[in-house]
Amino acid sequence: MFPDPKAVKRVTSIGAGPIGGGWTAYFLSRGFEVIAYIHDEAERHKFETIVRTAWKSLTSLGLQKGASLDRLTVTTDLNCAVQDTDFIQESAPEKIEVKQELYADLGKIVPEGVVIGSSSSGLTMSDIQVNCPTPSRCIISHPFNPPYLLPLVEIVGGKKTCYEAVVWASNFYEAAGKSPLVLKKEIPGFIATRLQEALWREALHMVANGEAMPADIDYALINGPAPRMAVQGQCMAFHVACGEGGMATNLDQFGPALQLPWTRLQAPKLTKELRDRMVEGCNEIAGEVPFETMAAKRDAQIVAVLLALKETR
Amino acid sequence: MFPDPKAVKRVTSIGAGPIGGGWTAYFLSRGFEVIAYIHDEAERHKFETIVRTAWKSLTSLGLQKGASLDRLTVTTDLNCAVQDTDFIQESAPEKIEVKQELYADLGKIVPEGVVIGSSSSGLTMSDIQVNCPTPSRCIISHPFNPPYLLPLVEIVGGKKTCYEAVVWASNFYEAAGKSPLVLKKEIPGFIATRLQEALWREALHMVANGEAMPADIDYALINGPAPRMAVQGQCMAFHVACGEGGMATNLDQFGPALQLPWTRLQAPKLTKELRDRMVEGCNEIAGEVPFETMAAKRDAQIVAVLLALKETR
Repeated sequence: MFPDPKAVKRVTSIGAGPIGGGWTAYFLSRGFEVIAYIHDEAERHKFETIVRTAWKSLTSLGLQKGASLDRLTVTTDLNCAVQDTDFIQESAPEKIEVKQELYADLGKIVPEGVVIGSSSSGLTMSDIQVNCPTPSRCIISHPFNPPYLLPLVEIVGGKKTCYEAVVWASNFYEAAGKSPLVLKKEIPGFIATRLQEALWREALHMVANGEAMPADIDYALINGPAPRMAVQGQCMAFHVACGEGGMATNLDQFGPALQLPWTRLQAPKLTKELRDRMVEGCNEIAGEVPFETMAAKRDAQIVAVLLALKETR
Repeated sequence: MFPDPKAVKRVTSIGAGPIGGGWTAYFLSRGFEVIAYIHDEAERHKFETIVRTAWKSLTSLGLQKGASLDRLTVTTDLNCAVQDTDFIQESAPEKIEVKQELYADLGKIVPEGVVIGSSSSGLTMSDIQVNCPTPSRCIISHPFNPPYLLPLVEIVGGKKTCYEAVVWASNFYEAAGKSPLVLKKEIPGFIATRLQEALWREALHMVANGEAMPADIDYALINGPAPRMAVQGQCMAFHVACGEGGMATNLDQFGPALQLPWTRLQAPKLTKELRDRMVEGCNEIAGEVPFETMAAKRDAQIVAVLLALKETR
């Protein structure tokens, strides 16, 4: 039913904003032909500026064979935009009525076997797909801003999505040079935004309480956890920081700290099941790599990040 | 009362663990003479291994004039360790009884005008300093792990600390190449750890609920927000992402999203006061720099970070 995800040649990008423009530039940089649908001719100039701006960074990162801005067609005709396409990336305004209506239309004209991925960061596909005639091929594929630079694409279907479409999308984004993450459940905010949102709300609480100003928040992140987080996620950061004992030591020793008021977010109960799931999860990521090797690699990468930041300051 | 913070020549580092060892290596790399106090001779080998490991990365980052491992003296005699010192960095075990007893002793032997900074990440100085004869010169100066690489040092006094000691410490760390952040209030977890802890607890909730595994959490962070967070804090990330409207657009447009269940942490009420504080705070950070310039710099720095990570993979 689905074509080979590695054989995609033509991509439709819907939306004239920073996300639609960013996706357009990204797909072009990977050598795809891109048909961009914009709602109104008046949006064209701004849209093309977004694409050209993104193109500069994408060129620095390295263009793929055949990549060219000349392979972009911009249209205000939705029928035209999806004709003969191999994939549709939808980045329309983040309003449920707009999306539902759009998916009702798209379902009537989308070529057979073509998947539609929504860039939505806050809506669920179960809600978006309600009026769509082809809901089984509709997924969320949520990028992180700026979408042409950050590799993550969170992928999850709605109630009516078939799992094959999710798998196809994951394979397609992987082949297109992105870092797809298939979610286990359809949860509001997905994974990365939930993590960011918890941090953001804690920041707002601190500012509301006169404990910090935005400058303090940003200074603390940039000079503190962030350079390490670009190298190691929070789980492996704790795993490696605890030496050979790893996550087990972290939870067994610092577990009681989860009761301390170090954030306004209550921690879950540290059950044996949660403890084991965290420990086994970290051991799986680590594989056979010894602790010293992981710590040395972490340090070498942090040094590289710090030097890169210093050189571009 | 306090000596010139830029004239510090000799630093005492207390503690044989990763934090004490990390600080020792860092101060040596900046050209200081370091007297390291370890509790037990049996800890010496492990301690010296930590220092030598950190030294490799510090060498890559760039040593200061006069920096040498030969300028390290290790002792188990606390009196010796603090004699003629210009500053004490305390990284003893994170137990309140241990710290209180240590500060009671240190207060009797610390030279006049010398500040004691505690690396504690979870205790408050108001609790640590209760039995110390010189509480006014005791502060928290909390580094981020690994302390020899990440620049942040969060500084805050306790109830009995004099503000001059806080200011002195901030000037000292600045001169020593660190990025000091003086806190407005003594809050549990300080700023950076609170932000990290909110994120961490949200991650634990997701793992507990079968919504994600540790590998998903880390993959989402590394490929999503983290490379940008190394470049821009969360406040400026939203400010710049919203284009010319900045944080005002972000809060006025997406403010209602604070009510959505995108994390288990309830948001504060978005009062006019909080809204204005966020907007003014971001405008202050941005200064006169136009939006396009900030976005272009963000992108150039993210590209540099991504390339640095790729080269060290």
